[in-house]
Amino acid sequence: MTTNAAPPHVLIVGAGPAGALMAILLGRRGYQVDVFERRADPRQLADTEVERRSINLGLSHRGITALTRVGVIDDVMRTSVRAKGRVIHASDGRLTFQPYGSNEREILYSISRIALNRELIRRADEMENVRFRFEMRCEELDRDAGTAMFRGPDDRREHVDSDFIVGADGAYSTVRLWMHRNERADFHQEYLDWGYKELLIPADADGRSRIELEALHIWPRGNALIVSHPNPNGSHTVTVFMPWEGERSFSALQTEAQVTRFFEEVFPDLPELVPDLAAEFLAHPTGSLVATRTAPWHHRDRCVLIGDGCHAVYPFYGQGMNAALEDCLVLDDELGRHPDDRAAAFRAYQRARKANTDALLELVKRNFDELRDTANQPSFVARKKVDLLLHRLFPDRWIPLYTMVVHSTMPYAEALERHKKQEALLRKLGVDAVLAVSLAVVVGARRLVSRRKRRVAAQVQAPLPNA
Amino acid sequence: MTTNAAPPHVLIVGAGPAGALMAILLGRRGYQVDVFERRADPRQLADTEVERRSINLGLSHRGITALTRVGVIDDVMRTSVRAKGRVIHASDGRLTFQPYGSNEREILYSISRIALNRELIRRADEMENVRFRFEMRCEELDRDAGTAMFRGPDDRREHVDSDFIVGADGAYSTVRLWMHRNERADFHQEYLDWGYKELLIPADADGRSRIELEALHIWPRGNALIVSHPNPNGSHTVTVFMPWEGERSFSALQTEAQVTRFFEEVFPDLPELVPDLAAEFLAHPTGSLVATRTAPWHHRDRCVLIGDGCHAVYPFYGQGMNAALEDCLVLDDELGRHPDDRAAAFRAYQRARKANTDALLELVKRNFDELRDTANQPSFVARKKVDLLLHRLFPDRWIPLYTMVVHSTMPYAEALERHKKQEALLRKLGVDAVLAVSLAVVVGARRLVSRRKRRVAAQVQAPLPNA
Repeated sequence: MTTNAAPPHVLIVGAGPAGALMAILLGRRGYQVDVFERRADPRQLADTEVERRSINLGLSHRGITALTRVGVIDDVMRTSVRAKGRVIHASDGRLTFQPYGSNEREILYSISRIALNRELIRRADEMENVRFRFEMRCEELDRDAGTAMFRGPDDRREHVDSDFIVGADGAYSTVRLWMHRNERADFHQEYLDWGYKELLIPADADGRSRIELEALHIWPRGNALIVSHPNPNGSHTVTVFMPWEGERSFSALQTEAQVTRFFEEVFPDLPELVPDLAAEFLAHPTGSLVATRTAPWHHRDRCVLIGDGCHAVYPFYGQGMNAALEDCLVLDDELGRHPDDRAAAFRAYQRARKANTDALLELVKRNFDELRDTANQPSFVARKKVDLLLHRLFPDRWIPLYTMVVHSTMPYAEALERHKKQEALLRKLGVDAVLAVSLAVVVGARRLVSRRKRRVAAQVQAPLPNA
Repeated sequence: MTTNAAPPHVLIVGAGPAGALMAILLGRRGYQVDVFERRADPRQLADTEVERRSINLGLSHRGITALTRVGVIDDVMRTSVRAKGRVIHASDGRLTFQPYGSNEREILYSISRIALNRELIRRADEMENVRFRFEMRCEELDRDAGTAMFRGPDDRREHVDSDFIVGADGAYSTVRLWMHRNERADFHQEYLDWGYKELLIPADADGRSRIELEALHIWPRGNALIVSHPNPNGSHTVTVFMPWEGERSFSALQTEAQVTRFFEEVFPDLPELVPDLAAEFLAHPTGSLVATRTAPWHHRDRCVLIGDGCHAVYPFYGQGMNAALEDCLVLDDELGRHPDDRAAAFRAYQRARKANTDALLELVKRNFDELRDTANQPSFVARKKVDLLLHRLFPDRWIPLYTMVVHSTMPYAEALERHKKQEALLRKLGVDAVLAVSLAVVVGARRLVSRRKRRVAAQVQAPLPNA
């Protein structure tokens, strides 16, 4: 392939947010883009269906950066709700607000997956060289030829040629399956022993939110966890996380009486917020949570994976979709950097991303422990305060982990590494000492502590280049 | 199922060493045992075919314990070669002997996989209630019903009923696949970026071994490794391990000239031991090395996995087959302990084994680094000496890792844990100090060092119960 040849023809399998964004990016490069999607066109779903089927996402800095590049961010934000922090609901009903960052820009945008998906498909579909086909299920593909066989509605089969295939078809990717067949491919799949179930806190009769609208709400209980995301109509989508089996588990809640008793004991403020809670709980399906890691991410210059197809994570950091959108930017950049060698572009893309998405999985597992266990505990809250204070004192040198992961585009692996160093330093100096010094500095006793501050400052790291 | 009911009917899929041993054990319990195997009956292979196809195994304490229980150990040992240690072949041609243990019983038995397999099948087949069927490929199974469909020679399909199914069908287990289908099953598969290729050092014209017979031979070169196992006829099966890709790799050796130059440079004593080395090297296939971890290991009381089907490891500790045979003992014991609740037996079996086979994979990865990198280095040799000296001084309290893994039945996870503690202690006390004290003790200056010895002794751990 040379830059003078006809533009490449790419087949994208999967029209979720990552597949649709990739279509826009490659369309802008002049590629001929075909996107084949197993499901129906989300633009044609009735609103009630959308509400029933959609899950909510927390769009943050990485996703915003990606959507900004293709100019859809303003439209996307219009269908989202700003969330400035999280409201912790304690067992005794006490509420605590924890801001997500230290300034106005460090917030999340709660958006439904389908709303985002529709917007991206709409934009991609406006491009002349991008074509969507829905209800087309990929049945097999030839990784060396770049061809694939689809089955459409009415069982019709259709053969598709391409120069290369992008697998954007999710955690159970068919593209990955065929790409790795009889290859020495690493593949790691693990299910959390917790499942999840969704419920809805509707808006009140006047269309107002029954709880603080511009926030995520968290009910951390150690062996059970609820997280809710706000919707633009004032409702909140509630996700109940719990073990599948055991004394306190989904399998232990089989009757309305059991469900009612459980919520009264564990989440006493929920029954008055969710109408028909017990009946709804039993009627809704329980979903499983899968995490995957794999390699390689590509086959020569013919197939490449993006998003959940190469790195599905649990939802406890709100980064799965943000990381998938970030993949698209990196892949697009590498294709730009290697216009005559697509295999080199794919290699560079995998090299740039895999260590980071592996680190993301580790971060997500840590955040799961934090969310369900410690978000609630005084020691955690104190630590969080120290973290934010140090950040305020040394904004370039000390950055809370959450800020690096959610509010920056620092590579995940680097964020994890820096965090480990910060933790080690905090252990060495002692949380209490640092807290005392930091507080003293903040309240203005600067002269008194200037030497101790300098000592602390000397030990934190060099300024960050891109945070 | 009660103890008074008809004996259970078990279908074992796979007649390798683990499947055949399991058949003997369950046959002895009075179960009705059907063993279905995909390949042809190994008892009917011509000897040349056996030599061509078989790989060699190092039978050690765990495997010996299992074979002793079913009374086949004497016959098995007759077809094996004792290996008292390893001979390290350095780049400059220097040979060093490292004993495998500190006494006569701490040795390995080198045996061909097919010889072992034949003996186990022969013994199982003598039992009235055990029946073998060869060339029967498992195509699907119903994990809830305990039924399976096989395809035999001539493409005939055959339906088999059972009370429960044992999956002994290896790293690419079909039983596992069907047992886990649409389940929340963990599955981890990773390929080493090294492959392997087998060669043969034949006996000389008088039928004598050309190198020390009663030993494994190791050629550690960092980025390439050769290991050889002795055969009863005086030959040695040589396995060349090397990266698939890169400067020094299988893919870089494509012509006889390249192969010849490579061996002359890296393994200069091999060309005179392996006739037609370059031609043989290019003619033999290159194999891949896979490791897997998974869960669950069973489905209710209907399906259960043993051996590589639930925990394939790389071959660098010689424990894959030993661990598989140990599985059989534990599963058999648990079935004995829970005569009326097979699901409980399977649960207890997985609980007893999985943490240990996970630890084994970690041990194997560490031993790979040791074998290829450090077996050769003075610091490693010194460390090994300290290890053995400490073991001699405190035989119950200080046990070298290799001894725990290979010459005991201590659970692998416990061995790894103890080793980590021993390493930490050695780091704390200092290798040199311990070496000096130990040497002094050994050479007889006992009085001089008695206080220091007591201090060291006080820090090593409590006696081991079963080492």
